Amino acid sequence: MTKNLKGIAASDGVATAKAYLLVQPDLSFSKSTIEDTDKEVARLHTALDQSTDELKIIRKKAAASLGEEEAEVFDAHMTMLADPEYIGAIEKQIKDDKVNAETALKSVSDGFIETFEAMTDNTYMQERAADIRDVSTRVLSHLLNRPLPNPALIDSEVVIVAHDLTPSDTAQLNKQYVKAFVTDIGGRTAHSAIMARSLEIPAVVGTDTVTKDVKNDQMITVNGLTGEVTIDPSADQIQASEKAAKDFATQKAEWAQLKTAKTVTADGQHFEVGANIGTPKDMDGVLANGAEAVGLYRTEFLYMDSSELPTEDDQFEAYKAVLEKMDGKPVVVRTMDIGGDKKLPYLPLPHEDNPFLGYRAIRISLDRQDIFRTQLRALLRASAFGNLRIMFPMIGTVNEFKAAKKVFLEEKDKLVKAGVKVADNIQTGMMMEVPAAAVLADQFAKVADFFSIGTNDLIQYTMAADRGNDRVSYLYQPYNPSILRLVKHIIDSAHKEGKWAGMCGEAAGDPIMVPLLVGMGLDEFSMSATSILRVRSQMKGLSASYLKTLAERATTESVTNEDNIKLVKEFTEKN
Amino acid sequence: MTKNLKGIAASDGVATAKAYLLVQPDLSFSKSTIEDTDKEVARLHTALDQSTDELKIIRKKAAASLGEEEAEVFDAHMTMLADPEYIGAIEKQIKDDKVNAETALKSVSDGFIETFEAMTDNTYMQERAADIRDVSTRVLSHLLNRPLPNPALIDSEVVIVAHDLTPSDTAQLNKQYVKAFVTDIGGRTAHSAIMARSLEIPAVVGTDTVTKDVKNDQMITVNGLTGEVTIDPSADQIQASEKAAKDFATQKAEWAQLKTAKTVTADGQHFEVGANIGTPKDMDGVLANGAEAVGLYRTEFLYMDSSELPTEDDQFEAYKAVLEKMDGKPVVVRTMDIGGDKKLPYLPLPHEDNPFLGYRAIRISLDRQDIFRTQLRALLRASAFGNLRIMFPMIGTVNEFKAAKKVFLEEKDKLVKAGVKVADNIQTGMMMEVPAAAVLADQFAKVADFFSIGTNDLIQYTMAADRGNDRVSYLYQPYNPSILRLVKHIIDSAHKEGKWAGMCGEAAGDPIMVPLLVGMGLDEFSMSATSILRVRSQMKGLSASYLKTLAERATTESVTNEDNIKLVKEFTEKN
Repeated sequence: MTKNLKGIAASDGVATAKAYLLVQPDLSFSKSTIEDTDKEVARLHTALDQSTDELKIIRKKAAASLGEEEAEVFDAHMTMLADPEYIGAIEKQIKDDKVNAETALKSVSDGFIETFEAMTDNTYMQERAADIRDVSTRVLSHLLNRPLPNPALIDSEVVIVAHDLTPSDTAQLNKQYVKAFVTDIGGRTAHSAIMARSLEIPAVVGTDTVTKDVKNDQMITVNGLTGEVTIDPSADQIQASEKAAKDFATQKAEWAQLKTAKTVTADGQHFEVGANIGTPKDMDGVLANGAEAVGLYRTEFLYMDSSELPTEDDQFEAYKAVLEKMDGKPVVVRTMDIGGDKKLPYLPLPHEDNPFLGYRAIRISLDRQDIFRTQLRALLRASAFGNLRIMFPMIGTVNEFKAAKKVFLEEKDKLVKAGVKVADNIQTGMMMEVPAAAVLADQFAKVADFFSIGTNDLIQYTMAADRGNDRVSYLYQPYNPSILRLVKHIIDSAHKEGKWAGMCGEAAGDPIMVPLLVGMGLDEFSMSATSILRVRSQMKGLSASYLKTLAERATTESVTNEDNIKLVKEFTEKN
Repeated sequence: MTKNLKGIAASDGVATAKAYLLVQPDLSFSKSTIEDTDKEVARLHTALDQSTDELKIIRKKAAASLGEEEAEVFDAHMTMLADPEYIGAIEKQIKDDKVNAETALKSVSDGFIETFEAMTDNTYMQERAADIRDVSTRVLSHLLNRPLPNPALIDSEVVIVAHDLTPSDTAQLNKQYVKAFVTDIGGRTAHSAIMARSLEIPAVVGTDTVTKDVKNDQMITVNGLTGEVTIDPSADQIQASEKAAKDFATQKAEWAQLKTAKTVTADGQHFEVGANIGTPKDMDGVLANGAEAVGLYRTEFLYMDSSELPTEDDQFEAYKAVLEKMDGKPVVVRTMDIGGDKKLPYLPLPHEDNPFLGYRAIRISLDRQDIFRTQLRALLRASAFGNLRIMFPMIGTVNEFKAAKKVFLEEKDKLVKAGVKVADNIQTGMMMEVPAAAVLADQFAKVADFFSIGTNDLIQYTMAADRGNDRVSYLYQPYNPSILRLVKHIIDSAHKEGKWAGMCGEAAGDPIMVPLLVGMGLDEFSMSATSILRVRSQMKGLSASYLKTLAERATTESVTNEDNIKLVKEFTEKN
C-alpha cells in the first residue's frame, strides 16, 4: 500500500528504486540449557560455515570495488572463524555449561574483546577486539537466522534506508548502485546529508519512521527537493516523480552553462565561490562544478581514514595533489579538526561529558605539537606547488592564534634553513566558529590574514544547542539576528584591517543566506561542490548594493530567525 | 612524613583535623570455582549479616541527622537483604554453578537491575534498581573485606578528602563535624567548592593526588586562602596554620561590622549585593551576612532533593518561607534548571552526546508545561508574601522568552480569576547565559524586566569549553575581552530600556571582576552569602566614576584575559 512520508530535503534530485534497509537486526536472545550439546556444537559449526561463505563473497566484492587493501580486513575475519583457541573455547563452554551456542559465543567473545581492549597500548590487539566484535555478530546473526545487511553485496539499483548513516556505513557502499538515501534522523548538516550532496544523489533525512515503514525491496520514491518520500508509489506518483527528475535535470543543465563563468551579481560585483573537500578524490567534483577556489580542505579525513597517524609524506602528497589540480587558484587547508564527534582509533582521547565543548581541533594541536608540526611541515613543503592558505580551527583566544602561528613560523624557518622550497606568501588565517572569537573579531583581524566562518559550530555554540540533538534542533537558527550580527561583525572587522572573510559552513550555499551574505560583502563562499552552480546562478539575479540595506536591517531591526526569512523574501522578490 | 600539596583555593579559611577518605574502594574480583558450596553460602550470609548491622547503624544516624524520611531508604535496603527471591537466587547460583559468592552476587544483582531498569515507565521499579545497586555493593565490600566509606557515621572532627564531591555525597555528611574539604579535581566553580563556601568551611580543590597521598586518620591542614594542604604537619606548621586561622577570623570580624551597612562605593554610589541560595535552609547565612536581596534562588534543588516531582504546595511553602524571611527585600527566583549535569531520577531524560548543549532548563519547561505551570502557580501564590521576581534560565531566543512569559500570564490570570491573592508587581526577567541572547540583549531588553548574567554558562558557551573539563580549563577566562564585551552590552542594553541588570554567577564575588562590574554600572551583584561582606568591604574602597574608564578600556583596548587582570591591578592600585 502506498505510504507518504515527509522529511528534511537534504540533497537535491529525485529518484525511484527498491529499498535496501541498512538496519541492524535485533540480535537479542535468551540463555537456555541444552541437553544434546553435540547437536548444539553442530549448530555452531553450521553458523560458522555460513559466516565464512558470506565473508568470501563480501571479500571478493570489496576487493573489486574498494581495492585489495580494504578487503584484507575480511581475511582477518575468516581467520578468526577458524581460530582453534576461539572456537574451541566456545565449544567447551557449550559442553561444560550445557548452554545454547548463542550464550557461549557471546560469553567467549566478550571475554576475548575485554582482554584485547585492555591492551590499550597495543594497536594490533585493539583491532583484533574490533574483529571479534564484527565476527561474533555475524555468527550470531546466522545462529538466530536474522541476516545482517551486507551493503558490500549490493549489485542493483537501490535506495538506502537507514536510521542514520555513519562514515563507516557509507564507506562500504558501492556508490554506483545507490540512487538515494533516506534516514530516520539527522538534519541538513548530518554526515549522511553531506555525503549525499557530495555524491550528487537525492537524500531525505529526519523522516522519523522510514526504517519501520518500508521493507526490503519495496519500491520507494525520494524527492530531495521537497523532502517527500513515497513507499510503494502509484503509477501516477511514479510518473510525477519522473517529471520532477526531468525538470531538475533541465535546471542542472542550465546551471552547467555557468561552469566556466565567474560569479558576478546583477550589479557587477564579483564574489569568489569555492568548494569544501575532504580528500583529493573530491577534486573531480570541484573541477566539474567550476569552483573558483577550495575554500575548505578538511584534513581530518587523512587522519580518520587511516589506521595510524598519517606520515608527513602521505600528507604532503595529498596536499600537493589538491594544490596542483587547482592550478594556482587558492586552496584553504584547515589543520586537523579531531575531537568533538570525530575520534581516531589510534589516538585515544579521554571520555568527555560534552565533547563538543572539549578537547578538539587546535586545542589538541597545540597540546600535541608532534602531530601539529608534522602536518605543518607537510603543508609547507606542498606550498611550492600552488596557492596555499592555512587556517586553524576552533581558535577562541588571540593567544591561541599566536601560539599556532608561532609553531607555523618555526617549522617554516627550519625548512627554509634546510633549503626546502616553501612558498613565501602563505596566508595564515583562522576558522571563526567559537563565539568568543567572533565577538572579538576586530582584535583577531590584526593578527590573522583571513577569517573563514564555520556556521555549524558558530550556531551550535552561540545558541548553546548541539546541532546533532533532535530535542533542541529548533535552535539551529542560521538567520537569527544574533548569528547574523556576529557574521557581520566578523566581515566588517576583516575589511577594516584590509583582510578577507569567507564562510565554509553549510549556510554559505543556502538560498536564504546568500542574499544576506552578499549584502554584508562576504568575500568568499565555500560549499559542497554540487551547490556552486546553483549559487552562481542565484547571484546573477542579486544586486549587492541593494542588499546592503537588507543586511543592515536584518542585524538591527529583526528580532527573530523568522523575521529574517521574511525580510529576505521581501528583498529578493522586489529585487 | 610531612607532605605538602598545592591546589586551588576554593573556600576561605584554615583548618586542621584528621583525614576522612570519601573514596570508593576497589571492589573488583575474579570468578572462581568453589567445591564446598555450603561453606560459600555461609560466607555470603556472614556478609549479609554484616551489611544489615551496618545499615542499622547508618539508618539510626541518618534519622537523627537528616530526619525520618531520608532514613527510610535504608529500610528498603535492609528489606532487600532479607528478600527470599533475591538471596535465594544468589544461593542457587553458588550451588548450581559452583561459583564464588562474589560472582553469584554480581550476576544475580545485574539481572535484577536490568529487569527493573527496563521498566522505564515505573518509577518504583527504577528506584528498586538503584537500591539493588547500593545493597549489592555493600555486601560485596564485606565479602571482599574492603569497607565502604560511611560518611553518615562520622562523629568527630574531620577533613573530608575525596576525588570529587557530588551533591549526594555532601547530602550525607554530618556538617557539624566537617572542618574542611580537599579534592583531587574541580575548580572554584565545582559543586564541592560552592558547597564549601556556603557552609563557610575552608576548601582546596584540584590537588590531583590528595586521595592517594593521605590515609584515613592522618592529620591534615587545609588553607583555603592559599590552596596549601599539608599532610602530617610539623608542630611549626600547625602553629603557622593556627595563626593564619586567627588572622582570617580577625578579618572576618572586621567584615562583620558591615553586616547592617548598605553597599556603597568611595564616591557614594550604591550597588545592591545579594545572595545565591538553593533552599530555604540557606536563609540563615543570607541574613547573617546582611544580604540586600536574594539574587538567585536555584529552585532545582526542590526537584533534586525529592523522589518525585515536588507538589505545588511543597513549592509554595518553600518560596513563601524565603520571601517572608527577606521581609520585603527582592527575591529573584529562577525557574527549574534541570538537564545538563543535573538529572532527576523520576524524570528520565534521553541520553545526549553533549548534555550542556541539550535539553535543559527553559527548553524542558516549555516542552513539559505541566511541570512548568505547577511551578509558576506556586510562585504566583507565594508572591503575596514578599517582593518576588521570576527569571527563566537558558533563554536563547526572544520567542522562547515570550512563550515562557505567556505561560506565566495565563497562570496568573487563572489564579486571579479564582480569587487567589497574587502580587501585581512581579518582575519577569531572564538569565543571560546563552551567547545568542547576550549578543541580542538590546532586543531582549524590550520584553524582559531585568537580566541576570550567569557567568559560568555564559563563559562556557562563549569560549566553547566545558567548565568541568580539565583539559580545556585554560579557556575559563572571565576577564577575556570577549566575555566583558558581552557583559557590558547586556548592562548597557538593560539601562537603555530603563531595566536593571545583575550577575548571579561566581564572578560577581570575584575581587578582579568587581571593579570591572562597578565600572560598567552593574546594578545587582549576587553571590555566595559568605562573600557578601568581603565584597561590601572591597566596594568601600572603589570609585565607580573612575572605574568607568577601566570598563571602557577593558572592552575596547584589551586583547586577552591577562591584559585585563593587569589593567584591573593598575586601576585599583592607583585608585
